[in-house]
Amino acid sequence: MKQLSLGLDIGGTNTVIGLFNESDELISKSAMRTEHQQGISDYVKRLNQEIWSLLEQQKPYTLAGIGAGVPGHLHAETGTVLRAPNLGWYDVKLGSLLEEHWRVPVAIDNDVRMYAWGEYAAGAARGCQNFICVTLGTGLAAGVVMNGGLIRGAHGYAGEIGHDPVEGNDLPCKCGKTGCLETMASATGIARLAEAAMKRGQRSILQDQAAAISAKDVCIAAEQGDALALEVFENIGSVLGRKLATMTYLLDPELIVVGGGAANAGEMLLAPIRRTLHSLYPKAHQPDVVQGQLGDSAGLYGAALSLASVRGEGNQA
Amino acid sequence: MKQLSLGLDIGGTNTVIGLFNESDELISKSAMRTEHQQGISDYVKRLNQEIWSLLEQQKPYTLAGIGAGVPGHLHAETGTVLRAPNLGWYDVKLGSLLEEHWRVPVAIDNDVRMYAWGEYAAGAARGCQNFICVTLGTGLAAGVVMNGGLIRGAHGYAGEIGHDPVEGNDLPCKCGKTGCLETMASATGIARLAEAAMKRGQRSILQDQAAAISAKDVCIAAEQGDALALEVFENIGSVLGRKLATMTYLLDPELIVVGGGAANAGEMLLAPIRRTLHSLYPKAHQPDVVQGQLGDSAGLYGAALSLASVRGEGNQA
Repeated sequence: MKQLSLGLDIGGTNTVIGLFNESDELISKSAMRTEHQQGISDYVKRLNQEIWSLLEQQKPYTLAGIGAGVPGHLHAETGTVLRAPNLGWYDVKLGSLLEEHWRVPVAIDNDVRMYAWGEYAAGAARGCQNFICVTLGTGLAAGVVMNGGLIRGAHGYAGEIGHDPVEGNDLPCKCGKTGCLETMASATGIARLAEAAMKRGQRSILQDQAAAISAKDVCIAAEQGDALALEVFENIGSVLGRKLATMTYLLDPELIVVGGGAANAGEMLLAPIRRTLHSLYPKAHQPDVVQGQLGDSAGLYGAALSLASVRGEGNQA
Repeated sequence: MKQLSLGLDIGGTNTVIGLFNESDELISKSAMRTEHQQGISDYVKRLNQEIWSLLEQQKPYTLAGIGAGVPGHLHAETGTVLRAPNLGWYDVKLGSLLEEHWRVPVAIDNDVRMYAWGEYAAGAARGCQNFICVTLGTGLAAGVVMNGGLIRGAHGYAGEIGHDPVEGNDLPCKCGKTGCLETMASATGIARLAEAAMKRGQRSILQDQAAAISAKDVCIAAEQGDALALEVFENIGSVLGRKLATMTYLLDPELIVVGGGAANAGEMLLAPIRRTLHSLYPKAHQPDVVQGQLGDSAGLYGAALSLASVRGEGNQA
């Protein structure tokens, strides 16, 4: 009988569901629209149906547990989503709802911590008991693993580095403040910095583009040697590398993993981060700066594999 | 029969020894010259005699264990001091030496982590599972407790924040680099910044002083309203508060404890740190910035009380 772990990566648009076997391999995957506007009862009902049809194909099996990553602020111990604005969820007891239905242990955490855990359990940080994972997507956040465990902080806000202000930066942030790190160091920030440089009159092959500029466009331009695009990555790498130096002095991580959409820029992003960090931190115990290995699926892996410790206590079908 | 824990705070000049009862109270204390120049065998021999005479007065007792804080870089798991330049110790198996003699569990860590643990077990951070303790003495370092446990990092260098460079600072550091945070934010830094400001021609009541200026002198001058001295504390508070903001975004601590000799400046140092940190971090979950409660004895408390978990397994006399 197969022993399965189920992972959920809940996003504003889609919810991805993955089934993992005992060897931590993703054996089946499915996605559904999140459609959070219909409310949590409707969501959980549709989710349970989707899970059910995925499980049906695996008979006979034991379900070891369910892990879920949510884009918001949660109370991991009780499985309560305190605030997930992108989902319109406030004080949603997602953990209990899933536990009552499936009668298995449920682990809930924010999407970035699940992402970091995925890279720890099955990706770039395998075997590292102490590392920092930063994800550059719409925003910027970090997942911190120390002594082999996730750090959540006193109020569950550990890793919210996106809103740490950068001196000399006056870009407005969607949080209402100005100068937040993520106004530069994120996929959104990459596009914004390129737009701003062009407005200041800097030349770029991106000028010929009619549509709004994305981080991917800046990446392609940089690959073609575009000076403006290369400068944007240098700028971001330098700012983020500087902040990571302070974090490295504080925590002595073995590794820095860079994930999220913007990590697809690879060495164009990683090299300036690494160069800055290494120029500021003693050579003898410098952490390497590497790209995540699991891409979009890191959160799914993390959610499912965060349950490894409770395996074998699940129900059977 | 009394169950006792023994704490050692090993400094370059003195070694302080403390006996603690089951209620975590310091019941007996003694000090001896470290005299590390005589070598480790001589040191351990004298130390054991000193411990013995302290214990003799407590008969009958059970010794639960020995904890020791060392100013250097160690491997906590094996109790090996890898490098303690102030003691001339390199690869010294202090843990084994004490364990073989006393036949009790021995816990060894660096002095700042033991200091932080003291404030956690019996001082300002009692009940805080997540906090950062910074000590400003000759240098600057931090002890980080997360999820109720000490963070040591991948190579045992967690907390070495003193050598994180400050932008725009070009003061030479004893480590060979320039601009390190501790060239400003430390007792040494306080004195140095005051001296430098006077050399630049700023007026101060400190000018009348014949002897070299200490952090304590700057503190007394600031208490008397001396503009230069007050500016030094503002400057340091602002620089350290800025770094602590990045650390707070990363770790979401409940509290920041400020210790070490310079913490005796109290609010003159704490207020500008707190003001800067709070201006940069959201109000809803701001950590308070407070002075340590145990002063010089924090390291002794931490060393002895880090053994709480192994109590009851010790030998008897």
